[in-house]
Amino acid sequence: MTTVGILGAGQLGRMLALAGYPLGMRFVAYDEAPEAPAGHLLDLTVAGWDDDSAIDAFGSSCTLATYEFENVPVAAVRRLAARIPVFPSPQALETAQDRLSEKTLFRSLGIETAPFAPVDTLPELEDALRAIGLPAMLKTRRMGYDGKGQRLLQDVSDARRAFEALGARNLILEGFVSFERELSILAARSTRGETVVWPLVENVHRDGILRLSTAPAADEGGTLLASAARIVSAVLEALDYAGVLAIELFDRGGRLLANEMAPRVHNSGHWTIEGSTTSQFENHLRAIAGWPLGSTETAGCAAMVNLVGEIPDPERVLEIPGAHLHLYGKSPRPGRKLGHVTLVKPDRAALAAAVSRLAGVVREQALQR
Amino acid sequence: MTTVGILGAGQLGRMLALAGYPLGMRFVAYDEAPEAPAGHLLDLTVAGWDDDSAIDAFGSSCTLATYEFENVPVAAVRRLAARIPVFPSPQALETAQDRLSEKTLFRSLGIETAPFAPVDTLPELEDALRAIGLPAMLKTRRMGYDGKGQRLLQDVSDARRAFEALGARNLILEGFVSFERELSILAARSTRGETVVWPLVENVHRDGILRLSTAPAADEGGTLLASAARIVSAVLEALDYAGVLAIELFDRGGRLLANEMAPRVHNSGHWTIEGSTTSQFENHLRAIAGWPLGSTETAGCAAMVNLVGEIPDPERVLEIPGAHLHLYGKSPRPGRKLGHVTLVKPDRAALAAAVSRLAGVVREQALQR
Repeated sequence: MTTVGILGAGQLGRMLALAGYPLGMRFVAYDEAPEAPAGHLLDLTVAGWDDDSAIDAFGSSCTLATYEFENVPVAAVRRLAARIPVFPSPQALETAQDRLSEKTLFRSLGIETAPFAPVDTLPELEDALRAIGLPAMLKTRRMGYDGKGQRLLQDVSDARRAFEALGARNLILEGFVSFERELSILAARSTRGETVVWPLVENVHRDGILRLSTAPAADEGGTLLASAARIVSAVLEALDYAGVLAIELFDRGGRLLANEMAPRVHNSGHWTIEGSTTSQFENHLRAIAGWPLGSTETAGCAAMVNLVGEIPDPERVLEIPGAHLHLYGKSPRPGRKLGHVTLVKPDRAALAAAVSRLAGVVREQALQR
Repeated sequence: MTTVGILGAGQLGRMLALAGYPLGMRFVAYDEAPEAPAGHLLDLTVAGWDDDSAIDAFGSSCTLATYEFENVPVAAVRRLAARIPVFPSPQALETAQDRLSEKTLFRSLGIETAPFAPVDTLPELEDALRAIGLPAMLKTRRMGYDGKGQRLLQDVSDARRAFEALGARNLILEGFVSFERELSILAARSTRGETVVWPLVENVHRDGILRLSTAPAADEGGTLLASAARIVSAVLEALDYAGVLAIELFDRGGRLLANEMAPRVHNSGHWTIEGSTTSQFENHLRAIAGWPLGSTETAGCAAMVNLVGEIPDPERVLEIPGAHLHLYGKSPRPGRKLGHVTLVKPDRAALAAAVSRLAGVVREQALQR
């Protein structure tokens, strides 16, 4: 009997458990918040990340562990990993938590990124601005998500205020990349080294939050998928990775730049639940358990629309043919991801029509294109 | 917030909960057994069916209720139904629990069945044998499942012993029907009267236990599906039914005879989880909540193989491309349904090849045809 411990009990943990019960696994989770969405369907430990004895007790209650958000403190993960196997490894987590380590890894593997430089002082920022040019993005190296912890610099005079606002150290300056599309590539690698890659996904963000994912992304001749697969495979191998890894990419006229990676199941892979033979959640669990990975074959095309801030009437969503509703059991709050809807259709024209109908029910401006 | 109470916490309750969490529903269940499989992922009340105060407390913990096995005592369901809506209705349950009421309903709706007669005394049995002829099946009217509670009569001299063995009252004698195939039809009807029907399923039993379901069943011109849909629709309307209803049918050279019905999600519908746009579990919940029903569209064809008595090595199942493993979290015991595996393929030839590969892993004689 495999009991999987999940650090974090948000919607990703919830969907991991939903995917893993049919495999005969059991689940426990650890979160600071008693109202965490996965708590309805597994045993939830509510404690702080610095509570060593709670981490130890949690480690005794499961046979292996994973995490569902990348800001879980590495110290807690290392403590757990001293007791039971934890995948992805603490090293992979540590790399992904820091924009500088992440981009340095990309560069070391020959993966193109925006130009970047570390910034810990104002003089360093001035040097970096001279080297990289304007516009540029000043970001915290750690703990950024959904567009938080970053400022766009349009002019040198913006620099000092942004530097102070972002904490005046542990920052990174990145060249502002103009791009045609945001894409992501998801892959799973098992503890045995078996790797599978899902089709390339096209993503639309608004206010820094993912709104719409479409898969497979338009990609004439499959050249972008081939590039993206090379990129994600290189990172998987370099980190001797186990689990699902997502890499966000910018498409600049057919050239891919790696933006950031998430060492976990990813919002832009939710469409795989219905759109692919094996979902990202199931393959993540199979990967960390050392089991054979499932096919990522995808029939037709899929769109995933996030429900952000408010939940539409479920009945109006469900009356759209083929709409799959996923609610996370969370209370509405502006900017909060409360659920998603997936549509799977045989071709792009049918998918576009369904997305357009869904747009009438979900008040999501990003769908009105 | 809809909280669904499930009477019974076996694998069907477990799969209902797995299908319903994404719809934003919560789940509680009621079972006599503390080790019931659904208990891992919802709040389980463990109490007897005659425990009125436990039933009442359970009714206070949910907004509507359903049941996952048809032998739940009607008195408990009626008590619950006095407090909260219960679907399918106690009347539908009562009809399905009694082979005589069930067959009488079929007959009243013009649905063909094997010849049958009620048997409460030995003289009645003798009369029935004269009218129906031999061979015939003597069955208990109530509480039969998986081939239990029935005897095949080949000769008049078998009659008395079978009569005594089956309890000497509340029996039914049924003409023995020779048939080419066992089929089943599943449909969902919502509290609003909306109805959807899944493709016809072909079933193979061994020792009275379902082993293999294949969908869609071979059906030239779709005439059998049309007949089966008429049969199930007539029963749904007659009972003003809400939820999923399964009817087992015999195919006698293209004529369908109704054998029995199950007022619940059904083992021969498990393939719908991956094989159909909307699973029987999701549509059952949508139906009882009064929500729009989902499409029963089916791409390609599917096979479902029950794991009976022993669980194969999960890794050997998962290495079969496209195999979907469903384990119920139960301990192995001879004749016990422990899980199932579903295969979905674009055509029958590919499906047959995959089933044949699965046969090498699952020691199921019914697959060796």
